[in-house]
Amino acid sequence: MRVARFATAAGGPARYGVVEGDGEGTVVAHLDGPPFDGVRETGECTPLSEVTLLAPVEPSKVLAFGRNYAEHAEELGNEVPEIPIVFLKPSTAVVGPDAEVGYPALTSDLHYEGELAVVIGRRCKAVPAGDVAGVVFGYTVANDLTMRDIQKSEGQWTRGKGFDGACPLGPWVETELDPSALSLRSTVNGVLRQDGTTADMLRDVGECVSWVSQAMTLLPGDVVLTGTPAGVGALQRGDDIAVTIEGIGTLVTRISAG
Amino acid sequence: MRVARFATAAGGPARYGVVEGDGEGTVVAHLDGPPFDGVRETGECTPLSEVTLLAPVEPSKVLAFGRNYAEHAEELGNEVPEIPIVFLKPSTAVVGPDAEVGYPALTSDLHYEGELAVVIGRRCKAVPAGDVAGVVFGYTVANDLTMRDIQKSEGQWTRGKGFDGACPLGPWVETELDPSALSLRSTVNGVLRQDGTTADMLRDVGECVSWVSQAMTLLPGDVVLTGTPAGVGALQRGDDIAVTIEGIGTLVTRISAG
Repeated sequence: MRVARFATAAGGPARYGVVEGDGEGTVVAHLDGPPFDGVRETGECTPLSEVTLLAPVEPSKVLAFGRNYAEHAEELGNEVPEIPIVFLKPSTAVVGPDAEVGYPALTSDLHYEGELAVVIGRRCKAVPAGDVAGVVFGYTVANDLTMRDIQKSEGQWTRGKGFDGACPLGPWVETELDPSALSLRSTVNGVLRQDGTTADMLRDVGECVSWVSQAMTLLPGDVVLTGTPAGVGALQRGDDIAVTIEGIGTLVTRISAG
Repeated sequence: MRVARFATAAGGPARYGVVEGDGEGTVVAHLDGPPFDGVRETGECTPLSEVTLLAPVEPSKVLAFGRNYAEHAEELGNEVPEIPIVFLKPSTAVVGPDAEVGYPALTSDLHYEGELAVVIGRRCKAVPAGDVAGVVFGYTVANDLTMRDIQKSEGQWTRGKGFDGACPLGPWVETELDPSALSLRSTVNGVLRQDGTTADMLRDVGECVSWVSQAMTLLPGDVVLTGTPAGVGALQRGDDIAVTIEGIGTLVTRISAG
């Protein structure tokens, strides 16, 4: 099942829906409230082509793993971490599919990082890795946009990875998916730049979610980003980035031309 | 004006109110909705002794400055940072006055850090330091509870400073206050451990709020912690910590005995 958040008019109220069908016949079946406690369709449907997709959830927090693919750690000259590296992105960083993100004034080295995003479905704490599947609502695609120069100079990654627009999510949450070996590809202006598989994660979804849940309660809609494979690089104003994960779909983000 | 959040019954709905009077005659004048767009009293009043004070705001994010007092940086063997160190605490870390916080299973070195907390009143971005007073709603007291061992071993401070209960706030927000030279004292079980002044901040309130706002939008109720003076130290199960800031009040937190 593909669960989306959408609006039927610009600036209109956000609703949850289930994306059904394929091609030109695809519709969004409206839901009565958030989907975490059960998916209740209202009976109303709108063609997908007539809605604006929003970020598929409104996370209270986004937790993200750094250097969780060995080849990516190496490409930036970093060691594979013995202890996981986890940072936070604030809710103000989240944007939806097809968002236009401004090139931040603070940076001259903005990078894309395509990532598998885990969406939490149940309030939970201290979840054993083997039990994580029971608290996961589903999976979506993320772009962990990073001001690489600021990230390097500031030690804590709060500004470097937490700026407005730094967390595109979408296009929807796929609720039936085995995340263990999915193709993950990123293109910039149509040119392939990342071509990885989630099978290469150093710590898998269960280990990542368990690790953060040992310290803090996770809430329905919270998101855990699981790191990026090799192939990251700099963006220019006007670039289009498309991150595609097998079984989910493609998240497109545009960097403003201005 | 002292703006609080409170409940009149355990587990009852949270309301905003204005704390009026002193001593046994102190009352909470109920407000109609959040105070950020204007304080509207409903006419209802409850004695302060009959309410449970909650964290005075519900921040979407808490931004916090590390090593913003020279003597505190030195006591932990750290340099005074040339570039500010900023980290995030998630909303799940926030608790109110008189909260009992569990000693986290992850740590064997839990520290208190008394801090002046800035409460944002207006949605804002890229605020010049000289204009920050115009976006501040007021000031409250914070305890930046820290798993010092985890903070040191993990590089990013997400788990070390973001665990459940890691951000006690309260007892209320004082809206009329010059934050530039306030006494800040912390006691543990009645013994004085921190005795500083906000005049010793390396970067003042205006600089701190401006710095984070250059990257990200701040929302009404968001909180910026401005660092702790010297005198931090380890806590034991059953300890009572009281942080008092001149002109605001005292924030008490208990570490669970169990």
